Amino acid sequence: MRQRTAKQLQRFDDTLVPCQIDSAVRLKNHIQPYFRGDQMVSVLVVYYSRTGNTKAMAEIIAEAAGKEGAQVRLKEVADASNDDLVWADGILIGSPVYFGQPASEIKRFIDDSISVRKQLENKVGAAFVSSGHRAGGRETTIMALLQSFIVHGMVVCGDPISTGGHYGAVASGTPDDRSSQECRGLAKKVVALATKLQST
Amino acid sequence: MRQRTAKQLQRFDDTLVPCQIDSAVRLKNHIQPYFRGDQMVSVLVVYYSRTGNTKAMAEIIAEAAGKEGAQVRLKEVADASNDDLVWADGILIGSPVYFGQPASEIKRFIDDSISVRKQLENKVGAAFVSSGHRAGGRETTIMALLQSFIVHGMVVCGDPISTGGHYGAVASGTPDDRSSQECRGLAKKVVALATKLQST
Amino acid sequence: MRQRTAKQLQRFDDTLVPCQIDSAVRLKNHIQPYFRGDQMVSVLVVYYSRTGNTKAMAEIIAEAAGKEGAQVRLKEVADASNDDLVWADGILIGSPVYFGQPASEIKRFIDDSISVRKQLENKVGAAFVSSGHRAGGRETTIMALLQSFIVHGMVVCGDPISTGGHYGAVASGTPDDRSSQECRGLAKKVVALATKLQST
Amino acid sequence: MRQRTAKQLQRFDDTLVPCQIDSAVRLKNHIQPYFRGDQMVSVLVVYYSRTGNTKAMAEIIAEAAGKEGAQVRLKEVADASNDDLVWADGILIGSPVYFGQPASEIKRFIDDSISVRKQLENKVGAAFVSSGHRAGGRETTIMALLQSFIVHGMVVCGDPISTGGHYGAVASGTPDDRSSQECRGLAKKVVALATKLQST
Repeated sequence: MRQRTAKQLQRFDDTLVPCQIDSAVRLKNHIQPYFRGDQMVSVLVVYYSRTGNTKAMAEIIAEAAGKEGAQVRLKEVADASNDDLVWADGILIGSPVYFGQPASEIKRFIDDSISVRKQLENKVGAAFVSSGHRAGGRETTIMALLQSFIVHGMVVCGDPISTGGHYGAVASGTPDDRSSQECRGLAKKVVALATKLQST
Repeated sequence: MRQRTAKQLQRFDDTLVPCQIDSAVRLKNHIQPYFRGDQMVSVLVVYYSRTGNTKAMAEIIAEAAGKEGAQVRLKEVADASNDDLVWADGILIGSPVYFGQPASEIKRFIDDSISVRKQLENKVGAAFVSSGHRAGGRETTIMALLQSFIVHGMVVCGDPISTGGHYGAVASGTPDDRSSQECRGLAKKVVALATKLQST
Repeated sequence: MRQRTAKQLQRFDDTLVPCQIDSAVRLKNHIQPYFRGDQMVSVLVVYYSRTGNTKAMAEIIAEAAGKEGAQVRLKEVADASNDDLVWADGILIGSPVYFGQPASEIKRFIDDSISVRKQLENKVGAAFVSSGHRAGGRETTIMALLQSFIVHGMVVCGDPISTGGHYGAVASGTPDDRSSQECRGLAKKVVALATKLQST
Repeated sequence: MRQRTAKQLQRFDDTLVPCQIDSAVRLKNHIQPYFRGDQMVSVLVVYYSRTGNTKAMAEIIAEAAGKEGAQVRLKEVADASNDDLVWADGILIGSPVYFGQPASEIKRFIDDSISVRKQLENKVGAAFVSSGHRAGGRETTIMALLQSFIVHGMVVCGDPISTGGHYGAVASGTPDDRSSQECRGLAKKVVALATKLQST
């Protein structure tokens, strides 16, 4: 949570720009930064995607977080930085499932975050994954991401019981209604938790 | 967090009684229920212990949570109930490491909590374990407990970076200084998180 | 692997016919030995089941292991003993998914196996689970079982790539064709591995 | 397992003597084949190392596998290929622990193995890790590697009970006597299992 300043509001608009090519049209219309007092909660959504399925989940999550009142940065992992991690109150990372674990592109991003390790403590973390096989590593991929968050001293959660109540959001191929619900539920939960945890 | 009522203050005193045999003398002297407005945060510490090592960790955690201002229930798993789970804002469960997983006595307690599944959402969960072998299942035991918390819709954390910053508190045999620090750090973190999450 | 005896051959004949009728009857005496030279491999299938789904998986696995030539013991966990574990060359354990982990009844069986820890080394272990939710702890439940096997010094595997190639067999409710294929594939793989590992 | 050829026997003789001097020299040509009948088992040891600790473990493992009669390839991950994976009967992968998971360099190697997925089935896999913190992700890092092996249809094991009997070999900083024992025990176990599994 940060004080709302002219600069931040500017950054909020800036943040939306990179999104515009793919999803920002929707996001721009829907994001309603919500101010609690003078504060707004900031959410980073980072993903890696080859087929577009994980990206589709990321967009649903980013949109839902925006609707919940968060300032959102939606970034492909190649464009995300440690500054984004430090900036965020809530962090959601998404990956396809490769051999039961996150893609190496995601792991590299996590490895590189060592230089900001102490700065992420008590932020909220959650994960979402896309996979073809129903028992093919979705859960272990989500848990790998949550474990990395915990080593950062972060607080982690899964999707709310109302959408299943498990380790995170999952999709088989293109996210269907159920997966989309999980994505939205997860986004909403992260925003709610981050809002409380970052309030002074 | 709950409104402070005469009944609850009574319960607070009641709660301390079962502790007196083992650790309540210390606890009684140190617990300083801390009221934020009209509220105090409640912490449940549940453990199973054969050798006494996990119990020793539980006592350190309960004492530290008390010092942080929480209302604490410290219970051997055979004495703990679903009511305790529902009562608590923060829940810490401790187990020896048996074949890389929590003791069946702990698992039974978790299985029995199915009837209150929807009532634990957004509570804070953390775990502590005791084991003889340095790579013999401590982490997988902690993760098993955290996974169960997540299925309950809870929010989970490990010990703070200041005491190591990993999945939870661990001890080899009798908790040494380092383990005791982890226990205290974990307790402090759970109290801090639960206080923020349960505040309205 | 054990030497073939007249009594075992007799039992083999006794059960061959009922085998073709119904798995419950067929497996009542739980033996469909197959002889490679003078040896047959022995497989233990242990399960806990409330709704019957995990039991159905266990029966499919036991039948498939028998068809592959193994001497099979199919046992509800309450009837299984450490002697069964020591007897077997391959061990398959099945459980419903309760809070992302095996049922406490299964965990108790594993905890009790401490007294035969050194006697299970290099046996083959695999797991099968039944769950309602697609990301609700199936994988973590399987992994918990595999981890316990590894602490026993056992060798573990998942189902073959031909049936999915992941951590083990899973079912949602009553095992459908896909789940049944996974069960059979897993049984076949365990028999093949145990046969090689136990050969002298 | 491969047929012994004149060339291999030559290479065997070439490397036998340097074997007894220094592991770096000895392993430079990475071959200490042992012939059982006309066959020798092949073991691949792949590692990533920045500080040299994981590399030291890899060398101990490679040397021990060679002493057990395996033909060994010891490779830094940047030099390892899918051909090495396909060539090997037993595969040991080592990594430092970064945020509770293998280094991204290791994960990239695993991700790239997708093109040979069906060719690794029933090979033996094991893992070794180096980490500073006693509960800081060693086990979850080992399990991540074992999970990837299982998705490859491989058979996995931990170190033998005689050296601890857990998920794999671990070291804190430079491998001490205990870690070295675990490394040797793990190598010995992989060679023994791969020899049996690959025998026809």
